[in-house]
Amino acid sequence: MDIAKIGGEFELIKRITKQPTNRQIIRGIGDDAAVIKFGNNYLLFTTDTMVEGDHFSLNYFTPQQIGKKAVEVNVSDIGAMGGEPKFFLVSLVIPKIFDAEIIENIYKGMRETCAKYNIEIIGGNITHGNQLIIDICMIGEALKQNLKFRSNAKPGDIILVSGDLGSSTAGLNLFLKNVNNFDEVKRKHTEPEAKFYKVKSFLKYINAMIDVSDGLASEVTRICEQSNTGAIIYADSIPIKPITKKAAQACEGDALNFALYGGEDFELVYTVSEENLDMVKGIVVGEITEKKGIRLLKDGKEQMLDGHGYDHFLV
Amino acid sequence: MDIAKIGGEFELIKRITKQPTNRQIIRGIGDDAAVIKFGNNYLLFTTDTMVEGDHFSLNYFTPQQIGKKAVEVNVSDIGAMGGEPKFFLVSLVIPKIFDAEIIENIYKGMRETCAKYNIEIIGGNITHGNQLIIDICMIGEALKQNLKFRSNAKPGDIILVSGDLGSSTAGLNLFLKNVNNFDEVKRKHTEPEAKFYKVKSFLKYINAMIDVSDGLASEVTRICEQSNTGAIIYADSIPIKPITKKAAQACEGDALNFALYGGEDFELVYTVSEENLDMVKGIVVGEITEKKGIRLLKDGKEQMLDGHGYDHFLV
Repeated sequence: MDIAKIGGEFELIKRITKQPTNRQIIRGIGDDAAVIKFGNNYLLFTTDTMVEGDHFSLNYFTPQQIGKKAVEVNVSDIGAMGGEPKFFLVSLVIPKIFDAEIIENIYKGMRETCAKYNIEIIGGNITHGNQLIIDICMIGEALKQNLKFRSNAKPGDIILVSGDLGSSTAGLNLFLKNVNNFDEVKRKHTEPEAKFYKVKSFLKYINAMIDVSDGLASEVTRICEQSNTGAIIYADSIPIKPITKKAAQACEGDALNFALYGGEDFELVYTVSEENLDMVKGIVVGEITEKKGIRLLKDGKEQMLDGHGYDHFLV
Repeated sequence: MDIAKIGGEFELIKRITKQPTNRQIIRGIGDDAAVIKFGNNYLLFTTDTMVEGDHFSLNYFTPQQIGKKAVEVNVSDIGAMGGEPKFFLVSLVIPKIFDAEIIENIYKGMRETCAKYNIEIIGGNITHGNQLIIDICMIGEALKQNLKFRSNAKPGDIILVSGDLGSSTAGLNLFLKNVNNFDEVKRKHTEPEAKFYKVKSFLKYINAMIDVSDGLASEVTRICEQSNTGAIIYADSIPIKPITKKAAQACEGDALNFALYGGEDFELVYTVSEENLDMVKGIVVGEITEKKGIRLLKDGKEQMLDGHGYDHFLV
């Protein structure tokens, strides 16, 4: 969930949002999910929209894969806050030419992913439009002590990722450039999965967390902007699989760029203090610094990284 | 919120939905909102999507009015369950040619309606697409004893509506047929308001309730299908304002049809037992019957009413 996916996002977000006044709102706009306290329960709310032609294409996605992915991306947002997904509502916009079978198969995919996480569909609506659009609003729950925010990184924190990056964007590029084979990489794009299970056992040692929906550079930037810090990323430590590098070459792309500025890997990026480093799993990819800005250390040289990675509005 | 807005809806809904298994789910798909119990809190969840060209046109809606309406229709759904709206998430799909001012004005409209109901925007996202689409997911809260379902109408119950019908559809037709004047009626379409405040003081006497988003015939049909009853509607008792009748004439429409099969009046339709009739306000428009089917009594004659009123998918 990111209300801010638009060029000049922080300008706009300042104008259209305001500080929450209701004291039930623990976290409003600006994180992976909103956190609201009802009685003693901490509930999480997030929403993500997938638009045909922008977030997926029916040329290489089956309706079932679209349904699955729509659920996974929202599960990933709930997980990145330290919560468990519970329920969701789904709004479908369907072109008039589509038959009921497509709707049924989208639902089939959603239901399979529901079974995997033990979540349930509690409502929604179906309307007509020019493009296939699927918008899910997911409700999760978290223990207070498990809640993780983007804003809690401290200078000196080590930055880790939960797994390899760049493969989803490599998969997308293989499709766009009609490259044959590389089915494993292509599936990373069409059948992404939330990775929350990887960090569940050591949540208490994590300071700040976010999921990789828009590339590592983008996500670290978000953590730093909200934590009022900077960061240095070690390019050579970023985990990129050999098959991802081969796939990137095959479509004349750069795997490091895919990892930094691609997205939809749904691995988690998290920071921990140096003293807690032994208590967590993951791959070290950088460090939070007092000095502002995001720097990339590559081949012994530092360069500034700009902006927010791949941005749907800047393409 | 109606997942079922599609031709042959009950066939489809049976295939794509299933009975909830989680015991927190008090009411899942099939009412104005889902009801979930978290601790001692009964939370309501609903979502509605407005698609440019289908639910509104920028030819006669200002961006601010679109923002307002999107909030009001969701407030209406929460109110029709006996609840109070609290928070919402908003997904905007914006054509690339739109400038930031349109987004800001949609937000301005939403924020004005938020202030009216003391609700807050807690999240959302903005993506690109071919059409302007605004999808809100609203969260409300209700006291257990105030919860109202479509399924609780009893044979012999009196059917009431909270106010006049047909004016929103008359307004829409005035726009579509380029009829001048009738600004008051046009505003009923562009600036509809939830009417929950009208029934708040006598909620405990209401058996079943629904809001009029798709016309009286449609809403009574939904109550009857879920309550396993039939109904008779008294055509001559349906409250239609003289100005609505004049407007209908001016655009060669029929005001009674607008009331029965139009929609978006957002008045409430509710049933009460005969003995409680004195305890409630509203206009009596019919009666719940054991005999199935929806009949219209008009000029001393009865006729069967078919289907679900105006349906976005049948147009």
